[in-house]
Order: sequence, then C-alpha cells, then structure tokens
Amino acid sequence: MAKKILCTVDGEVKSYLVDTAKDFHTKEGIIKKEDFNKKVIKTNKGIQFYCFDPTFIDLFNKIKRGAQIMLPKDIATIIAESGLNNQSIVVDAGTGSGALASFLALHAKKVYTFDNRPEHLEVAKKTFEFLGVKNVVVKDQDVYEKKVAVKNADLVTLDLREPWRALPNVTSCLKKGGFLIAYNPQITQAQELVNVLEKNGLLLIKVVENIQREWEIYGQVVRPKFGRIAHTGFIVIARKI
Amino acid sequence: MAKKILCTVDGEVKSYLVDTAKDFHTKEGIIKKEDFNKKVIKTNKGIQFYCFDPTFIDLFNKIKRGAQIMLPKDIATIIAESGLNNQSIVVDAGTGSGALASFLALHAKKVYTFDNRPEHLEVAKKTFEFLGVKNVVVKDQDVYEKKVAVKNADLVTLDLREPWRALPNVTSCLKKGGFLIAYNPQITQAQELVNVLEKNGLLLIKVVENIQREWEIYGQVVRPKFGRIAHTGFIVIARKI
Amino acid sequence: MAKKILCTVDGEVKSYLVDTAKDFHTKEGIIKKEDFNKKVIKTNKGIQFYCFDPTFIDLFNKIKRGAQIMLPKDIATIIAESGLNNQSIVVDAGTGSGALASFLALHAKKVYTFDNRPEHLEVAKKTFEFLGVKNVVVKDQDVYEKKVAVKNADLVTLDLREPWRALPNVTSCLKKGGFLIAYNPQITQAQELVNVLEKNGLLLIKVVENIQREWEIYGQVVRPKFGRIAHTGFIVIARKI
Amino acid sequence: MAKKILCTVDGEVKSYLVDTAKDFHTKEGIIKKEDFNKKVIKTNKGIQFYCFDPTFIDLFNKIKRGAQIMLPKDIATIIAESGLNNQSIVVDAGTGSGALASFLALHAKKVYTFDNRPEHLEVAKKTFEFLGVKNVVVKDQDVYEKKVAVKNADLVTLDLREPWRALPNVTSCLKKGGFLIAYNPQITQAQELVNVLEKNGLLLIKVVENIQREWEIYGQVVRPKFGRIAHTGFIVIARKI
Repeated sequence: MAKKILCTVDGEVKSYLVDTAKDFHTKEGIIKKEDFNKKVIKTNKGIQFYCFDPTFIDLFNKIKRGAQIMLPKDIATIIAESGLNNQSIVVDAGTGSGALASFLALHAKKVYTFDNRPEHLEVAKKTFEFLGVKNVVVKDQDVYEKKVAVKNADLVTLDLREPWRALPNVTSCLKKGGFLIAYNPQITQAQELVNVLEKNGLLLIKVVENIQREWEIYGQVVRPKFGRIAHTGFIVIARKI
Repeated sequence: MAKKILCTVDGEVKSYLVDTAKDFHTKEGIIKKEDFNKKVIKTNKGIQFYCFDPTFIDLFNKIKRGAQIMLPKDIATIIAESGLNNQSIVVDAGTGSGALASFLALHAKKVYTFDNRPEHLEVAKKTFEFLGVKNVVVKDQDVYEKKVAVKNADLVTLDLREPWRALPNVTSCLKKGGFLIAYNPQITQAQELVNVLEKNGLLLIKVVENIQREWEIYGQVVRPKFGRIAHTGFIVIARKI
Repeated sequence: MAKKILCTVDGEVKSYLVDTAKDFHTKEGIIKKEDFNKKVIKTNKGIQFYCFDPTFIDLFNKIKRGAQIMLPKDIATIIAESGLNNQSIVVDAGTGSGALASFLALHAKKVYTFDNRPEHLEVAKKTFEFLGVKNVVVKDQDVYEKKVAVKNADLVTLDLREPWRALPNVTSCLKKGGFLIAYNPQITQAQELVNVLEKNGLLLIKVVENIQREWEIYGQVVRPKFGRIAHTGFIVIARKI
Repeated sequence: MAKKILCTVDGEVKSYLVDTAKDFHTKEGIIKKEDFNKKVIKTNKGIQFYCFDPTFIDLFNKIKRGAQIMLPKDIATIIAESGLNNQSIVVDAGTGSGALASFLALHAKKVYTFDNRPEHLEVAKKTFEFLGVKNVVVKDQDVYEKKVAVKNADLVTLDLREPWRALPNVTSCLKKGGFLIAYNPQITQAQELVNVLEKNGLLLIKVVENIQREWEIYGQVVRPKFGRIAHTGFIVIARKI
C-alpha cells in the first residue's frame, strides 16, 4: 500500500510517495507507519504533512523508465489524436518499460503489447503489477520478424528503433480507419517511416512534435521556468485505408 | 449516419465526413447515397474513394467551436496530467460548446458540466447528441455565484474568463488529492488564478503551455510546416489538499 | 526619396513606406506630395499622419524576397554568433535576392557574394541600389564548380540547396578560427552538411533553430499572437581549423 | 594576450581560451607558454592542439555575467530589429555587466551607457577593457531619477527591473523613428511597460520572445539536444513618433 504525502517548507511544496508498511524518514523528520491513517500527520520534528491516496498518475510518475522516456505530453497526444476509449483494442510494440502500454490500458478495452527482449518483459511485468493494470496482454514476439495475430485493432503504437521494419507485420491488425502512431526520438526515424507508410496502405499522415514549457508564477513573477522545456520525440500519425 | 471518405488526388489526400442519407457532391464528382456501403466507391467522374466508419475523433473534429477553441493537445494534457479514467467523476465549468466535456466524458465515468448562458447550453446539447455522449449531466448554474453540489470529484476543469471567481464554489467538490485544471488563453488569467490557489487549499501547482509543431515529410523534404505551430493557452494544474 | 508614415485609426497603428515624389493614396485619404515635409501631415479626410525618415530596416523590410526568405531573427543569429564587425571580410553564396548580403554589408567591411543565375544577380543588383549598399562585390560564379578566390575571410555564409557541394570551394577562403554559417530550410540539408564538415577542416559545430513568437499586449490582455510563430530554417555554425 | 585552442579527444571537441603569458594545464597535458606560437602544438602527453587568435565573440563568451544574462540570440534581435549600424548613436540603461553595451558598441558609432550602482560600473569597466571596446561612454546616473542628456539617438536599450520608470527620462533622447528596445525576463514587466508606451510617444509596438533550440547531428542521429532550449526574456520594441 502506498500513500502520497506532502508538506510545505519555506513556501516550497515537497511531495513523496511512501510505503505505508514502513516508517518514513525524511529531512523533515520521521513519520511512524501507524500515523499514515491519521487525519493530521506530524513528524517527530513537528512538521505537518498532508496525506492522500495516490492516483494512477502518482504511481505512474514513480515507475522506472529508460533514458529516452516518452513523457505524458506525448502519450497524451496519442490518446487525443486517436480518440482512444474504453471500446478500443490496441496493439503496442515494443513493450519497453511497459509505461506506454499501462497508460493506454487505462483508457482502452485491451492492450496487446509485443517485445522479445527478456529484460524488457521483466521490467514491464513489474510495471503492470505496480500500477495494478489488468487489461494488458504481453506477447513475447519480435514484430520485425513475425506478423501480429490481433485483428480489428483501433490503434497500433510503435516505439521501436526501426519502426518501418514492423509495418508489414502490424498494419494488418488495424481495422479500416484505425490509427498507427509511432514515437520517434530522431527526426530521421520519422522520415524513414513516413516515406513507406503509403505503400503499406496508411494515409492521412501527420507528424507532430510537442514542445512543452513550464512557467513560474508567484505574485508579480511570471516567467518561463529556466531549462524546463521538454522535447522528447516526433510523433507520426497515420490511418489504415 | 455518417461516413468518413477520402481520396488521393495528385498525391494529396482529401477527406470528408459525409451524411450517408444524401448524395455527396465534391470537386471530384458525385457519390450516390446508395454507394456508400460498397466496398469500392467511385464518383461519376471515376475518382475512387476509400470509406470507413468515423471514430469519435472524426466527429469531434467537425463540431463547431468558438474563437478560442481548446485544441486536442491541451485536452490531452488535462487527461494525461490528471490520470483521468473510467472511474473518474469530473466537474466542468463553463460548458461552452461542450467540446471539452465531451472529450472528458469519453474517458471518465461521469461529467457534470456547468454553464448559465442559454446560447452555450443549446450548442452544447447539440454537441453531445452529435457525438453520442451519454455520461454528461448539464447543469444550468453560474459557478461564480453558487456552490457546486457534486462531492468527491477526481477532477475539476475550468474554462472561464475569471476562473479565480469560481474557486470557492468548486474546490469543495474535489476529493483529497483531486485535480483542479484551468485553461487560460491569457497568461494574466493564469497569474491571477495561481496567486489565490494556495489560500483555497490547492497545492502542487504547475503551469504549462504546449507548443505543438507539425512537420512536412516526403522523400528528402523534412521541415517544419510553415505557420503550423499551435499555441492556445496556459494550463494551470493544482491539487486539493 | 522615401518617407515612413503612420497613423492611428481605432487604436490600431498603420504604417506605410511612401515615395515622396508622388501623392499617396490610402484608405485614410490622400496626402499631397508637397505635404510630406510638413511637421504635421493631414489627409484630405483629416486623418493625421506621423512622418519620419526610414532607416535601413524600414527599407529592408520592403524588399522582395523569394518563398523561403531568411528572417531578421536568423540573420541576427549569423551576426551574433560570428561576432561580425566593421573589420570583417565576408564571402556569401548564393546571392539570391541579395537580402542577406545587404544586411551583412551593413555590419561588415566588405562582402563578396557569389551566384551564377542571371535572374538572381539582376534582383540582387536592385536590392543593393534600393538599400544604398556600397560594400558588396557581386561575383557571377558557380561555387559548386569553382574555388572562391577571396583570402582571409572572417565569415562564409551559405544559403544554397546543396551547401555541402560548395565546401571544398569556400573553406579555403576562411582564416583560422573563421566561421562558416549555413542556412538550411530542411533539417536533412543540415544533416548532410554537418556530416562532411569535419573532413573539410571545420570544427566546433553547432546547429540551432530559432522559434520566434510574437505576443499581444494591451491592458490585461497578454497572450501569444495567434499563428505568429516563425520558424524558417536550421542554422549550421562551424569554425575553420 | 589570449589564444583560443582546441583539440579532439574521442571524437569530441574541447576548446579553451588561454592566457599566452603562462603555461596551460589541462586534462590533456601541459602546453608550455613558448609553444603557443608554433604551427603545431603538442602537450607533454602528446595530444595535438589547434590554435587560433580569438575573435570578439570568443572573448565575449568568457565574460562574467549575472544570473539573468541576456543571450546572443536576444542581443541579435536588438541589432536586427533596429537596423543598428556604424552611424548609430545608442543610449543603454542599465549597464549591468557591460555585456550588452559592448556588443552594441561593436556595431554602433557610440554607446552611452547609464548605471548608478558602483559594483556594476566596476564590473562593466573590466568588461570593456577585456573586450577592447573603445566607443562606450559610461555615465554614473540613475535613469529613474534624471533625464538622459543625449540627443538624436537611434536606439535606446533598457535592461532594468522597472523599465517604465525610465521612460520619461530616455524617450527625449530618441530621434523621430528611433527605436526603444527593452529586455524583460518577466512577461509582467513587458505588460507594465507596453501599457505606458503610447502615452510616452512610442508606437509600432512589437513584443517577441526567442526560443532557440540546439540540435545534435552525427551520422543518422538527428534530434534536438536534450534540455538545450534557451529562453531568457521578452523583448519589447517600439518607435519614437
């Protein structure tokens, strides 16, 4: 069981995700495990903490992800552009850390996720358990090599080094009008992929990147946060015809 | 009943959302209404069209929205940052065109949307019908003036000219840890709102803006599309404590 | 002779560059040519105009440029990154409309500009005359084919479709530590160029793009101007070793 | 005397600005001071260095600047938008580190710079000496309090906490059509300034921000550099009427 806790010190908010089975040690003092359910929590140093049940997103933000992580802003684009919903069947390759599959599963009916690297499958399994995701089916399969057996999918997501190699094995999964969305850290990957989409029966192609900027606001101070502009990749969107 | 159809002319893809109860007239020729269910559709000029059932997003992109529309990229941020899912209760004010409420309803359990301008309520009603949205409850109420009666909401969304005026009437709806997310075309609105969040019991404040850029890719041509950078507003995110 | 004039109508400022040899006809009325030197100018409709001598930049903003114009923000980057100054010798290829050569000439000692397309040379000649630029030497030469004879240049600027083809003919112009700066509308051009810089003796490579955004401010209205985000190209900067 | 030197280690370029009066110690070994003028420089570890005379920009990039430094991209915008050139008279306030005044002086006829904080004036004096800038006149004066005596300036630049307070004391310096350009880290500063420009006789107002992004290119790797997006401030541009 986990709890999200936070306190305000010198006007700044600090937040933690804590394991309620153990005492929690922080700079602000120690919280005893039997105190987590109290209405008001105080450390032995007298600092007051606020406490609430973590939501999916609190847990999601804690999962370990690799170097070139896909950020919520990009996952959000996949959800918004595809109109993904609780009737949707999704094919996802590769699984990687399982972060994308988990997030999509929260909004879809079922997600089939494909990867053949044992280290990925192991990490992803832990991710699904940690987030309590039930509607993901993991398939140990190399999508560069073998056709994906799912039919009538509404969405195929690709987060692969060479997504164009997977095209012949995944486009047949999609129903007419279904979406293929590939996430590419490199613009050159997007280029190589886009140039073979049409011959694979995919049209209505769109390539976007999201530059998200955080702002700092307090009183009369209103400015973009220094160095807090996130770019992670180029998102290629196309539809099966 | 509607169908999405598209054809390729001179290498460019054109797409239309058509009413299948009527013949469809286009530059590429006429399609007779009895032809919409054929596997291959041809106009009287011999141009071949592809046809598929429109998804939620195809319909969504057709709804009439006002001047300062919230784009999918920003709606996506609300969904991703809040971890909205099919267990979530949402309070939304003001309703406006009903576009945001509809999109949130696709991912939530129930959306209560508030507005007191008759012209908005009328437009929104049409939006919900057109998109087939069932889990939205419309409330004719001015949130600047009267407390919202919903309890234990997971998310409150504000798209109001003076969102700070609504705070005392909506924060009591939120459960502990619940999200308040306000969309502001003006940075000055974001400023005025942020500066009163804490005294209304909202913390973990984050302000983001999304700059989305489209790219043009064919062959060796790889460049940002001219003039296709979208910014629409500043998104303020905070949590009830 | 030209004058810059402007008036305020309904709170909005309109400005024109006018030829003082002729009467000027505008929506706000007619200004007689003999009135341009008056302290206060009024049209026959009684609208008051302000008037001043145009500066270089007023004239520059009027010159005709092709489809993929280099904007002041990108020219500015060339000036700032290279430390160009009135002791600098510049080699510029291709001349195109002459816009870049003119702007660089304003800050340099001498600019040698190379192009071999007669239509460009003709347009550029008019640009130099219109702007009163004296320190530009135009050379009718194809830099893909023949070595540039200039020695000890401080800066080489390239605005060419295939800048990598010009490298062997221009790098020998540069003095040690001199800058080569190429403007590329396509990221793929930047890629092809960067990948051969080192073998041509160019190091300290930097690739930047400038996204410039205009804001609208009046009273409490403070927001990015809709659609006013400019991107034009990728700027490759390197130094001769 | 200084030299710019650089070497390539493991495919990466390292560069240093060195004082030629002393031996230079680096991770790559020691370079003796008598070797700096040799055609080929080698450290005692046998690593080969390239060497060239530093340009203005090499020195400029070494000067100490405060927390909210104005970057070359923003200085460049001032130069490009104003059409500053070697006939231009500039009024600059406040002097701060002297960085902006130095850069403008490189392109202008004369720069008068105003500040009344002794610690700024001292740092700025060192900056001017280090960069060899001769055409800057430093004035120990508080521009919030006293009118600036310069006449017929082409450009006034403001880098002040409350630029609107300086307006009555600097606009009279400008000639008709001259530019006032203010650099503001906060959008709220830009707002407060813009809202009083017109009543101070300044029109043709434009507010821009530059988002500059660096790209990483080698072989097929082509992506924005992580975290290398620079924003520093909002630039307000207006003209004296």
